[in-house]
Amino acid sequence: KLQCGDGSDGQINVADTGEFSFSDKPTLDDIRKVQHEFCKERNWDQFHTPRNILLAMVGEVGEVSELFQWRGEVKEGLPDWSEKDKKHLAQELSDVLIYLVRLSERCHIDLPAAALEKIEMNKKKYPAHVVYGSSKKYSEYDLKE
Amino acid sequence: KLQCGDGSDGQINVADTGEFSFSDKPTLDDIRKVQHEFCKERNWDQFHTPRNILLAMVGEVGEVSELFQWRGEVKEGLPDWSEKDKKHLAQELSDVLIYLVRLSERCHIDLPAAALEKIEMNKKKYPAHVVYGSSKKYSEYDLKE
Ligand SMILES: Cc1cn([C@H]2C[C@H](O)[C@@H](COP(=O)(O)O)O2)c(=O)nc1N
Ligand SMILES: Cc1cn([C@H]2C[C@H](O)[C@@H](COP(=O)(O)O)O2)c(=O)nc1N
Repeated sequence: KLQCGDGSDGQINVADTGEFSFSDKPTLDDIRKVQHEFCKERNWDQFHTPRNILLAMVGEVGEVSELFQWRGEVKEGLPDWSEKDKKHLAQELSDVLIYLVRLSERCHIDLPAAALEKIEMNKKKYPAHVVYGSSKKYSEYDLKE
Repeated sequence: KLQCGDGSDGQINVADTGEFSFSDKPTLDDIRKVQHEFCKERNWDQFHTPRNILLAMVGEVGEVSELFQWRGEVKEGLPDWSEKDKKHLAQELSDVLIYLVRLSERCHIDLPAAALEKIEMNKKKYPAHVVYGSSKKYSEYDLKE
């Protein structure tokens, strides 16, 4: 099912350098389940309508933004951040993910499957040989969908 | 590692009803890897600084919001939405996830592990017997962190 390097853009993929990676677990469905239980145990499903969750997610994205404001650009891996700020960022990114997963669940959207499909669409939309090293907007390339 | 129903809130969890669930695959790390390859093949890492990705994510959250605007509240599972709108929503939620995963990677934050840890914190912050059926703000409960 995973189609990393399926040749749709004519590139041969090498294995990941393994410099940084996520834990294999929990999966997105594990997170969905744990959050589902969390809400059920609190009888909070009644508040978790799609638009309520969307607004909660927007709020959390704002909290992530706050952590990046006024800093100028930051370096990969955040070498100049305190442990406290990194921990705080991990928590705010988590809040975004938790609400994103919950919103997808309430909308009956299979988020992991959809994301993989979207990346496959992106590969076709942005063929490597055309966009290599360029940050033009899609509409500036001479491409057709 | 998964601590669904670890008793920290004194509730006994029952198995999920299985009404709706996500695909087991891809995992968050699978998505990270595929997106990592996608960027490498296009020499786009240079544009994927944390704040650039954050702004891209904010843009995608805006696109999700657009799909919900003017509709009033929507029902679980989006029974009144067209297939086209549902598909579109799946794509925009995916874009948010893709940038969230990419941002976490660039910041060296183990997103799946952090999310699970955050839900455990939420369980402690909002004990089920105190918050059951209530949507008060945290600051309105008589709780201590
Ligand atoms: C108040 C509330 C919280 N959370 C969970 C999801 C977030 O990860 C975290 C946010 O809590 P707070 O609003 O206190 O930051 O808690 C939730 O799912 N539903 C809620 N109605
Ligand atoms: C332009 C661009 C796109 N994408 C990927 C991630 C999103 O899923 C999708 C967004 O594309 P667009 O901006 O065309 O909507 O493509 C990306 O990773 N990096 C980029 N510099």
